[in-house]
Amino acid sequence: MVLSKSWLLAKHFEGFPKHSDFKLKEEMLPAIKDGEVLVEAVYFSVDPYMRSYSRRIMKEGDVMTGNHVARVVESKNHKFQVGEFVISPAGWTTHSISNGTGLHLLLPNWPENIPKSLAVGALGLPGLTAYFGLLEICRPKAGETVLVNTAAGAVGSAVGQIAKIKGCKVVGCTGSDDKVSYLKEIGFDEVFNYKTVPSLEEALKKASPSGYDCYFDNVGGEFSGIALLQMKKYGRIAVCGAISVYNGPSPQRGPCVQFPLFMNELCMEGFIVLRWQNRFEEGLKQLMAWILEGKLKYPEHITKGFENMPAAFMGMLKGENTGKAIVTP
Amino acid sequence: MVLSKSWLLAKHFEGFPKHSDFKLKEEMLPAIKDGEVLVEAVYFSVDPYMRSYSRRIMKEGDVMTGNHVARVVESKNHKFQVGEFVISPAGWTTHSISNGTGLHLLLPNWPENIPKSLAVGALGLPGLTAYFGLLEICRPKAGETVLVNTAAGAVGSAVGQIAKIKGCKVVGCTGSDDKVSYLKEIGFDEVFNYKTVPSLEEALKKASPSGYDCYFDNVGGEFSGIALLQMKKYGRIAVCGAISVYNGPSPQRGPCVQFPLFMNELCMEGFIVLRWQNRFEEGLKQLMAWILEGKLKYPEHITKGFENMPAAFMGMLKGENTGKAIVTP
Repeated sequence: MVLSKSWLLAKHFEGFPKHSDFKLKEEMLPAIKDGEVLVEAVYFSVDPYMRSYSRRIMKEGDVMTGNHVARVVESKNHKFQVGEFVISPAGWTTHSISNGTGLHLLLPNWPENIPKSLAVGALGLPGLTAYFGLLEICRPKAGETVLVNTAAGAVGSAVGQIAKIKGCKVVGCTGSDDKVSYLKEIGFDEVFNYKTVPSLEEALKKASPSGYDCYFDNVGGEFSGIALLQMKKYGRIAVCGAISVYNGPSPQRGPCVQFPLFMNELCMEGFIVLRWQNRFEEGLKQLMAWILEGKLKYPEHITKGFENMPAAFMGMLKGENTGKAIVTP
Repeated sequence: MVLSKSWLLAKHFEGFPKHSDFKLKEEMLPAIKDGEVLVEAVYFSVDPYMRSYSRRIMKEGDVMTGNHVARVVESKNHKFQVGEFVISPAGWTTHSISNGTGLHLLLPNWPENIPKSLAVGALGLPGLTAYFGLLEICRPKAGETVLVNTAAGAVGSAVGQIAKIKGCKVVGCTGSDDKVSYLKEIGFDEVFNYKTVPSLEEALKKASPSGYDCYFDNVGGEFSGIALLQMKKYGRIAVCGAISVYNGPSPQRGPCVQFPLFMNELCMEGFIVLRWQNRFEEGLKQLMAWILEGKLKYPEHITKGFENMPAAFMGMLKGENTGKAIVTP
């Protein structure tokens, strides 16, 4: 018998999430049966999609959604051995029993010097989101200029570095001077703090006077209204998220995109990384190779304590993290 | 010596165009020189782009932009014979002298029973806009559902019919009951009058309960905000124009598109037909073939009198035309 703690969605988020939207639940798990495994979470992930898709993927009372890295502590399933590490889709829960469905072993031969937390970061969905979103939707060519916002986040920091690997000029936008410094350190060509520049339009123009070929957008809203006017002819915009609108009233209003779209024949496409599920292995191998070559850094922002998960989640939505927001139990 | 009349853009449009924005000018043309031709306009075109691109392509005092069908009345250029018909880019002017640059002869072997006005309509830029915009940006597949607004206009009516030829279900939105009837006559599956339906959302749902795969948008703004929420996963939106926003204050605000874009992984692309200039011949041949087979009808709304061009233009922007708005001198 093992005690499992879980964070539930007590109430659907209205506006910015608050502590009372979450509820901690404790339960004793039963003994596992044939075919089952018991896993213990070691690295939790908090991500923007847990806010944006919350109404689509959860109902009140559900365990908060998400993947975590877990260790197999007991197994009656021949596919999983005690001590192995898996990605579990069980959400914000310390211990869970699974019949194996949805559990994935980490890449084989995971190098000793690579933290396993990367399996929910640069070597997990955030890294894959950056990889496929940038390469398949923005389709950057060497010499082109790529704009990415929330650039110090798990996805944004990978997007910028992959664009550099592909020979692009990279402009990042982020929300603190420390993050600006960090992004310059890891190779971004131009970075600015959107909270302190006097004019976003001027900052974008100064960073790339000739405009932008690609724009990887996690923000939407007002930011996009201004950025779209700086796109070059035939520019490509990957709409990965819209963090500026998740927490406001719905439906949100903002600058009309149609005018810049047809004036400069822009292509703006929304995507969810699961579209490329059958190519994940390719993506993960490439990301791992870049990491081992030192070309792709993987900043992490680690919060300790399972009890702090709601705070870590809300902090991530406020941009308190540099790199992937991770929680250890 | 020939008297030429021209309509000038007297003042850049602010909001909806008004009579005082235009000015009539008369001048005697000189004798033509070697290499030149004198042409006389026979069919003028008034199109939405003359409003949307007005500031980009004209300055105050310029002749109003546009193509017209003209007859060669005098020629000292071996490429053009007296009596031949050409497309001229000279704009809103009854007579003009050209050295041949930008003049294009109509398709060879133009059938006797096909009005030459179609060279600025279904067999001109509007037809090509429908053809390439629908087939290259929306990429409809047989069995899919296509939504088109301003469906009774020059472009919209062609879009709907081409989508039918390609085996799609076609839903049109237009602004009068007469136009609704007309569009049903020419084969649209579902048509509604956006001015009289109690709810646009309900009208769209009723016309296609399962949603839309393709959306050819000439309107933008509020209409698009609602239509985007009715798109199916991986839907494609061709942004041809945004007539709802041309005449309002700039920059316009409206419903945020980012949320539906990433929720359903939609692709929204703006385009200008000149992108496919090197394929115009292919497009025109196909359009002509469909017209001769009776598969593509070409409604025209003809205004008589050169003096009525501003009124015809403003009427077109208000949607008074069914089909291509043409002016004869």
